[in-house]
Amino acid sequence: MYRVSICLILMCGFCWAQAGSDSQPASSNVRGAEYPRVSSDLRVTFRIKAPDARKVQLQPGGDDNGLGKGPIDMTRGADGTWTVTTPPAVPGFHYYWFLVDGLAVNDPASETYFGYAKESSGIEVPEKGVDFYAVKDVPHGEVRVRWYYAKTTAAWRRAVVYTPAEYDRNALARYPVLYLQHGSGEDERGWTNQGRANFILDNLIAEGKAKPMIVVMEQGYATAAGAAQAPAAQGRGGGQSSAFEQVVLNDLIPMIDATYRTLADRDHRAMAGLSMGGGQTLQITLAHLDKFSWIGSFSSPLRAGLDLKTAYGGAFADAAAFTKKVHLLWFGAGTAEERMLAPALAMSQTLKQAGIENVFYQSPGTAHEWQTWRRDLHEFAPLLFR
Amino acid sequence: MYRVSICLILMCGFCWAQAGSDSQPASSNVRGAEYPRVSSDLRVTFRIKAPDARKVQLQPGGDDNGLGKGPIDMTRGADGTWTVTTPPAVPGFHYYWFLVDGLAVNDPASETYFGYAKESSGIEVPEKGVDFYAVKDVPHGEVRVRWYYAKTTAAWRRAVVYTPAEYDRNALARYPVLYLQHGSGEDERGWTNQGRANFILDNLIAEGKAKPMIVVMEQGYATAAGAAQAPAAQGRGGGQSSAFEQVVLNDLIPMIDATYRTLADRDHRAMAGLSMGGGQTLQITLAHLDKFSWIGSFSSPLRAGLDLKTAYGGAFADAAAFTKKVHLLWFGAGTAEERMLAPALAMSQTLKQAGIENVFYQSPGTAHEWQTWRRDLHEFAPLLFR
Repeated sequence: MYRVSICLILMCGFCWAQAGSDSQPASSNVRGAEYPRVSSDLRVTFRIKAPDARKVQLQPGGDDNGLGKGPIDMTRGADGTWTVTTPPAVPGFHYYWFLVDGLAVNDPASETYFGYAKESSGIEVPEKGVDFYAVKDVPHGEVRVRWYYAKTTAAWRRAVVYTPAEYDRNALARYPVLYLQHGSGEDERGWTNQGRANFILDNLIAEGKAKPMIVVMEQGYATAAGAAQAPAAQGRGGGQSSAFEQVVLNDLIPMIDATYRTLADRDHRAMAGLSMGGGQTLQITLAHLDKFSWIGSFSSPLRAGLDLKTAYGGAFADAAAFTKKVHLLWFGAGTAEERMLAPALAMSQTLKQAGIENVFYQSPGTAHEWQTWRRDLHEFAPLLFR
Repeated sequence: MYRVSICLILMCGFCWAQAGSDSQPASSNVRGAEYPRVSSDLRVTFRIKAPDARKVQLQPGGDDNGLGKGPIDMTRGADGTWTVTTPPAVPGFHYYWFLVDGLAVNDPASETYFGYAKESSGIEVPEKGVDFYAVKDVPHGEVRVRWYYAKTTAAWRRAVVYTPAEYDRNALARYPVLYLQHGSGEDERGWTNQGRANFILDNLIAEGKAKPMIVVMEQGYATAAGAAQAPAAQGRGGGQSSAFEQVVLNDLIPMIDATYRTLADRDHRAMAGLSMGGGQTLQITLAHLDKFSWIGSFSSPLRAGLDLKTAYGGAFADAAAFTKKVHLLWFGAGTAEERMLAPALAMSQTLKQAGIENVFYQSPGTAHEWQTWRRDLHEFAPLLFR
């Protein structure tokens, strides 16, 4: 028994040396899983046991997150365990999977995160000196799962609702609401599971940097009752925005205002979203400025060559009227996502030239990934409801 | 274009015919996924695309759930899609995975459910005429994720808390609490994700069959601060019960009573659990009858040959005193899990012969699986706090 234990310790020591002697299991792993591991220089070591496989590769999701372009060949050990250590990764959350003889498979050592229209593996790479999304010793709000019936779709839907730490203690207080949407292929769980929105808000509120607020996260997919189902588009959001818009306006907002102690007017209602969710945000808010007055577009796909007179139903046509109505218009993008950055910057500048104030935020060094959107939220939320 | 569309429809029609013309996508699938499909006779058709695989098999988790013992060979189609249709399955939730050339992989078309100490695929097989765990048109409670710091482990922990539908409307009302534990290899998400505990309670409360109550679900794993970590045991619960007991008594219950409007005494505090969680329930409640008076053991591994004088610290030694203190002692097991059924029945009878009243519940035709525990909860909850 004694000899076996020593042997196991030596083996373990050997494995960890490969991964960098100062490496730690990723916080995105399932409880107790030793791999993937992140070294202090942010190299990541991935491992999977597949003794009968002929070829095993790492495939990072997203692009330009430092893990490499992929597929990246992994090396087989004598016991059938395949390993690879990447270059230093960009900090933040990255989707990934393995290609085992060409088949995309999840890492059993990773928690799963809904992205790419399926449950995917993910790796959390810490950012040195940055803890705005860490679990800290501050009062924590709750993340509540709320089921409700939407007439638009004639179906039960699941919303995720963040209530600030003080919500249940201040039984008479009412709160402003931020509607916060995920990207294509993700769902209502993304902003808390991948984005850590609840911890970002907990920390901002505890520091007095953001007003206590309710955050509502819904699935950005909807098929109107009686309409033909389009399974592929349904999972990806394509062409379904109109029904989703109806859900937000006619089902979600009324339910939230009836269920929670909200300040139920346009001055206390914000909407923001990332990528597809940012596009939905612009579409919905700009067509309904009677309902929203704080607007955030994070890494959204924007059209080039904006005609201010006709774009978004003419919402920007009268700059003075717009500025009077809208308290905040925000555009954000990562500097490593040129495809989203350039059109967003152009739109921001065009609007400014027309006299429409807006905030433009660039996330340094991050791509079309969650670290960009965590930073967006961290910078955006303090400006709300002032 | 037109010809391609028709062809796709024909192909689809062909696939569905294989799966039974009246089959439906499983409710456990990710949004929009057409497979796995369940026929009206409860045969299940699984499918995965793996063009380069040499052999693909279905491996049902658990035992004796009608899907077959596994591994079950799947058949390759011309396009590299592998398919199998099982015999009629036992109704309920079953874990499963695929073996692709021997490697256990999740089905990308399934949501994931934490079991077997990892995120696993799962299939929901409906039970005809049974809707006690369905999403119905009744007031719905909330499932709240609550982070709190446990001194026992010197770490942040995540608890899942069900609050009944009326909780936020009755700002002065206080509620009894059921602590409800998962099984080995599962975690604090199991009772809602796999067990549908929130819908079971919603429906019972709406029908007036159960009292409105708070349900607290925690992870049954803990390593005391400063103690050596045992990763394997940590994931499986082995030998960690003592630290978990301290978490429940010294961290979890005080936090819940300080955070929620509870009735914070033994008459209004219950604990129940399944399998490992049932063992933990008996261990914790019987050693602390000053804190609990309603006790549920669902499919727990019980020791044979109970010595009533010494078992569980002598809790059963004085039958009259025990009966006076404990309002409900419940044992449950499925008729298809002989290993759990026989010792539970023996224990129940031994206790009855000694004058200790208890309820023994047999779930007809179900094994060591979630359908057994859903039924347990559905029968157990109405008896609480009366």
